[in-house]
Amino acid sequence: MSKKIVVIGGSAAGPKSASKARRIDQKAEITIIQKGKYLSMASCGYPYYVGGVFNDKTDLISSPEGVPRDSAFFHSTKNITAVVNTEVYKIDRKNKFVLARNTVTDEISEFPYDKLILAIGAYPVVPEIEGSSLNNIMTLQSMDDADKLRKLSKSGKIKSAVILGGGLIGIETCEALQLAGIKVTVVEKQDRILPFLDEEMSDLVKYDIEQKNTEIITNVSVTEFKGISDVKSVLLSDGREIECDLAVISIGVKPNVRLAENAGLKIGETGAISVNEFLQTSDPDIYAAGDCIEITDLVTSSKTYWPMGDAANLQGRVAGQNVICGNVASYEGAVLTGICKVFEYSVGSTGLSEKRALAESYSDIITAIHFAPDKPRFMKGKNIGIKLVADKNTGLLLGAQIIGKGDISKRLAVASMALRAKMHINELINLDLPYAPPFSPAIDNFITAAHVLENKFLGYFTGITSLELKRKIDAGDKLYIIDVRDTNEYDVACLGIGEIVFPLCSLRKYSDMLPKDKSIEIITFCEISLRAYEAARFLESLGYENVKVLEGGIAGWPFKREKY
Amino acid sequence: MSKKIVVIGGSAAGPKSASKARRIDQKAEITIIQKGKYLSMASCGYPYYVGGVFNDKTDLISSPEGVPRDSAFFHSTKNITAVVNTEVYKIDRKNKFVLARNTVTDEISEFPYDKLILAIGAYPVVPEIEGSSLNNIMTLQSMDDADKLRKLSKSGKIKSAVILGGGLIGIETCEALQLAGIKVTVVEKQDRILPFLDEEMSDLVKYDIEQKNTEIITNVSVTEFKGISDVKSVLLSDGREIECDLAVISIGVKPNVRLAENAGLKIGETGAISVNEFLQTSDPDIYAAGDCIEITDLVTSSKTYWPMGDAANLQGRVAGQNVICGNVASYEGAVLTGICKVFEYSVGSTGLSEKRALAESYSDIITAIHFAPDKPRFMKGKNIGIKLVADKNTGLLLGAQIIGKGDISKRLAVASMALRAKMHINELINLDLPYAPPFSPAIDNFITAAHVLENKFLGYFTGITSLELKRKIDAGDKLYIIDVRDTNEYDVACLGIGEIVFPLCSLRKYSDMLPKDKSIEIITFCEISLRAYEAARFLESLGYENVKVLEGGIAGWPFKREKY
Repeated sequence: MSKKIVVIGGSAAGPKSASKARRIDQKAEITIIQKGKYLSMASCGYPYYVGGVFNDKTDLISSPEGVPRDSAFFHSTKNITAVVNTEVYKIDRKNKFVLARNTVTDEISEFPYDKLILAIGAYPVVPEIEGSSLNNIMTLQSMDDADKLRKLSKSGKIKSAVILGGGLIGIETCEALQLAGIKVTVVEKQDRILPFLDEEMSDLVKYDIEQKNTEIITNVSVTEFKGISDVKSVLLSDGREIECDLAVISIGVKPNVRLAENAGLKIGETGAISVNEFLQTSDPDIYAAGDCIEITDLVTSSKTYWPMGDAANLQGRVAGQNVICGNVASYEGAVLTGICKVFEYSVGSTGLSEKRALAESYSDIITAIHFAPDKPRFMKGKNIGIKLVADKNTGLLLGAQIIGKGDISKRLAVASMALRAKMHINELINLDLPYAPPFSPAIDNFITAAHVLENKFLGYFTGITSLELKRKIDAGDKLYIIDVRDTNEYDVACLGIGEIVFPLCSLRKYSDMLPKDKSIEIITFCEISLRAYEAARFLESLGYENVKVLEGGIAGWPFKREKY
Repeated sequence: MSKKIVVIGGSAAGPKSASKARRIDQKAEITIIQKGKYLSMASCGYPYYVGGVFNDKTDLISSPEGVPRDSAFFHSTKNITAVVNTEVYKIDRKNKFVLARNTVTDEISEFPYDKLILAIGAYPVVPEIEGSSLNNIMTLQSMDDADKLRKLSKSGKIKSAVILGGGLIGIETCEALQLAGIKVTVVEKQDRILPFLDEEMSDLVKYDIEQKNTEIITNVSVTEFKGISDVKSVLLSDGREIECDLAVISIGVKPNVRLAENAGLKIGETGAISVNEFLQTSDPDIYAAGDCIEITDLVTSSKTYWPMGDAANLQGRVAGQNVICGNVASYEGAVLTGICKVFEYSVGSTGLSEKRALAESYSDIITAIHFAPDKPRFMKGKNIGIKLVADKNTGLLLGAQIIGKGDISKRLAVASMALRAKMHINELINLDLPYAPPFSPAIDNFITAAHVLENKFLGYFTGITSLELKRKIDAGDKLYIIDVRDTNEYDVACLGIGEIVFPLCSLRKYSDMLPKDKSIEIITFCEISLRAYEAARFLESLGYENVKVLEGGIAGWPFKREKY
C-alpha cells in the first residue's frame, strides 16, 4: 500500500521535503497543507523585491525555469497535492490524522497520515507597545508584506521610515528603503547593529551605512508609536522622538510551536521543536524541519535556534528522505553562517564572535584582525576585513567575521568549512585556495588572517583593537603612537589621534630619536598593519617592552578620521 | 653572534622567506641574491599587463602601498640586502658559502651562510625544433617578456598569433592577445585544453573560447617555425601550416635544479629538489622553496611538481621561519587547486579529475555533474557547472572541476577545503555556507552537486555524460531521448539530437504514449537536469529498466546545438 505523507507548511522546508519524498517514492500519496495562498516563496528575496532589484513578484515563487510553483505545478510536475489557504489546527497522533480549516470557506478537512512533517515556520516578534495598530506599521514576513512595503515605498508618500531592529532583515530592508529615496533610521536595542559581529566590526559597517544618509541609533528601543491614523513618529526609550511615515518591525522571529505543543510533542530548551539528528520529533511518526525546530550548533555542540532559509531547505531534504526510507539521512547542525549585503558593503559571520566565545565561557581565546584588498592592487582589489576567533588552549578556530566591499562570501565559505571540519590554526596557514590575479592576492586574505592569528599565538606580536586604543586615548593614557607609513601616504589620509609620523625606513635609521624610556606604551600602525608589525618587531629588538600593533590599521578604524 | 641567512632567488618564495626571517629575527644578516634586475615580481600578473588590464609595469613589483620593491626598499624598510644582476654558480656546502658572478660586471663575490634558502624557480620548456631562433617567438616568463609581448601586441604589426600550449598561462595569454585585436590560435598537444579538466568540461570551455574568434587545435604539436627573420607560420604535426606574426610558447616549466644537483643535494622523483615537510633539503643547512621543489599531493599522498605562485609564497614563509627557529613550521603540501579567467568564463580545478583518478588506479569512482545559476533567477544568477569526483569505496571527495560565468572561485575554495579536511560525501550534503540572495541560491551550487553525488551513490539515478551520449548517438545506438522541458523552452533552445519533447507534466499524464519495451535505453534531459531526474525516477517506477539522466543537461552540452 502506498504511504501517506502529509507536510504542514508550504514555504521552504515543506515543499522541499515533499519533493524529495516524491523523488524517492513515486507511489506515496504526498500532501502539502499551506495556511496562506502562496507556495515555495523565496522569502529571503523580499527585500530585493521591495528595493526594485527585480519587479515581478512571481519570480519569488517561480522555479528556476520561471514557472510559478502553485498547486497546479506541484500536481502536474511532481504529483504532489498542495492545498492552500488551509490551516491545520489539530494533530491527532493516536489516530494519525490532522484536522484543517479552509481560511476562506471555513470548511473542515481531515488528512490521514503515515508520516507527518511539520514545517510550520516562525512568526515575527512584534513589540507590545502603544500605537501598534496605527497604519504603516508592518513586518516583512510574507508575500503580502513585501507587496505592501514595495507599494508604500514607491508611492512617494513616504519621506522617512524607522526600522526597528538592526539584524540581517532590518539592514537589508534599510538598503531597500534608502534606494527608494526614503530617509531611514534604524533603531537597535543592543549596543550594535548586526549583533553577530563584534563591536569594532559592527562599528565599521555602521560607519559605512551612515555615509548613505541613514541614521543608526543603538542601545535604545521604541516605546511607543504615535500618530492619528497613520504612524507619524516613534518614541524612543531615551526620550527622543523620531518622525516617520512608516515603521518596519524586524526584531526577530519566534518558532511556531503551538500546534506541536498542543499535540504533546517535546519542545526544546530554546523554545523550538526538539528533534533528533534524523529530524524526528518525540513522536517517531512526526518529523519537523525549518524555522520551527532547534538545531545543534556544531561549534559549541549546544542547541540553538537558527531560522535560516538555506538550513530549512537542507532540513526539508533530510526529512523527506527519512519519512520514506526510515532514518537514513542526518542533519548534523550548522556552524551558524550568515551573510548580508548593504549598499556596496557585504557583511558575514560564521561560528562564534569574540563576545559570544567569552559568553560561552571559553577561558582563553585569541583573536586576529586583518584588512587587505581582496585582489592585487593592479587588479583593483577592494578592501575586506577579517576577524578570526580561536581557542588558545586547543588551537581550534571558533569563528570568523568578514566585512568589506570586496569578495567576502568566498572567505566566509572557507571559514565555515574550517569550522565544520574542526580545523586547527596550523592547518589554516597553508591552505591551497584558488589563486589567480582576477580572484585573490597571492596569499588569500583568509590565509593571511590565519597567519596573523598564528603570529599572535606564537607571541610574535601583541595587538590592540581599534576599540581598546580609542578607549585608551579617551581615557588620556600616555601613549606613543607611531604611524609608520610614508609621509606622502599621511598627506592623503590620517587618523589624527596624536600619532607621530615615523616611516618604517626612517625608524630603522633614526631609532635614536625614539623615547629613552623603554617601558613606554607604544602603538604602531599603517594602512593594514603589516609594516606596523615589522616596526613593532624592530622596536622590541631595541628593548621596548610594551609595543602593540593596531589591528586592521587605518583600514579597520571605525571612528572619525582627521583626513580620509 | 648574528645568523647569516642567504637566499638565492628574488621572485616570490625568496623575498617572502627573507622577510619572514627578518620579522622573527632583527639581528640576522639576511641577503637575497637575484640573477635578474627585478625583485618580487608578481609574475602571475604578466598576462594582465600584456592585456592592458593595467598599464604601469611598476605595479608588478610594487608593495600593496605602491612602493617599488627594489634593493633600496628591502634595505630601508626590512634591513635586507638584496643584490641583483647576480648569479650564484656554486654552493660550497663544506665551507658554507656560495659563489656568485655579477652578470653586468662579471665580478665574483663570495657569500658565507649559516643557513641557505634555494628559491631558484623554474625555466620555461621550449621545444627544440627548427626555426626556434626566428624573431617574435617568445615565452612569457619574465618582466622583459611581458614588456616585449605587450609592445608587440600593441604595435599594430601583429595580426595573428599562435600560442603553443593550452594550459593556464597559454589560455590567459590567449585572452590578452585577443583583447589586443589579434587573431589567436592555440595549439595543444594533448586531447584538450586546460588538461586538468575532464574532457566534457574542457570541451565547454573550448566552445566558449571559440565564440571569441579564437581557434583551438588539440592533439597536435608544432614541428617547425617558418619565416625569414620574423616568424611567419608554424607547421603542425598533422601537416597543417598556420600563418602567424607571433608565437608564444607556454608548454610548461621545469624546476631549476642544476645548482642544487651540482652541490650534491637530493633531487626527487619528479625532477625537482627533494625537501622534507620543513622544506629542508638533504643538507640540513639548506632549505628550498617555490618552483624548484617537489611537494606532497595531499589527495594521493604522492610527490608532485606544483609550480604555483601562492604555494611559493606560503613555502617561503615556512622556510624563513625554519632557518631562524629550527624546524618549527611545516608545509604539508597542496590539494592542487588552480583557477584561471578567460573572457567571461572562469575555470578551476582542485584535487583529481576523473581521468587522473583512473590513472592513479582508484578502482571505483563516482562522479556527478551539476549546472545551475550561481544566484537566484531574480538576482540574475549566471550558470556555473561543477563536476565532483569521489571514491565510491570510501565515500571521500577526490576532486572538483568548476567552470562558468558565475562565481566559481567560492565553490572551488569550498571544494579545496573539503579535500584538505578529507571530508566524506555525507559531510558535504548539509554544509552551512553563506546564503543570501546576492551571493548564492538557497542551496549553494556546491551543496547541490554533492546532493547529485549522493543520489548517484545511493543508486537513485544513473547519469550519462554529454560525451558518452554523443558517442552513443554517433555510433547510431538505439536511444529514446526525452527533453522533459516545456515546449516554450524548447522553442527558444534545443539540442537537436533526435530527442522528443515530452514535458515532465505531460509525461505523468500520458505515460501510455511511452514505448512498450521496458528495456529500451531512455535518456532524459532538461535545462540543468533536475526535472530530468524527476522524470527518470517516474519512468523507473513504470518499470523502465534502463533510464539515464544527461548530467549537466543543456547547460552542460559542449557540442553544437540546433538552436541556442
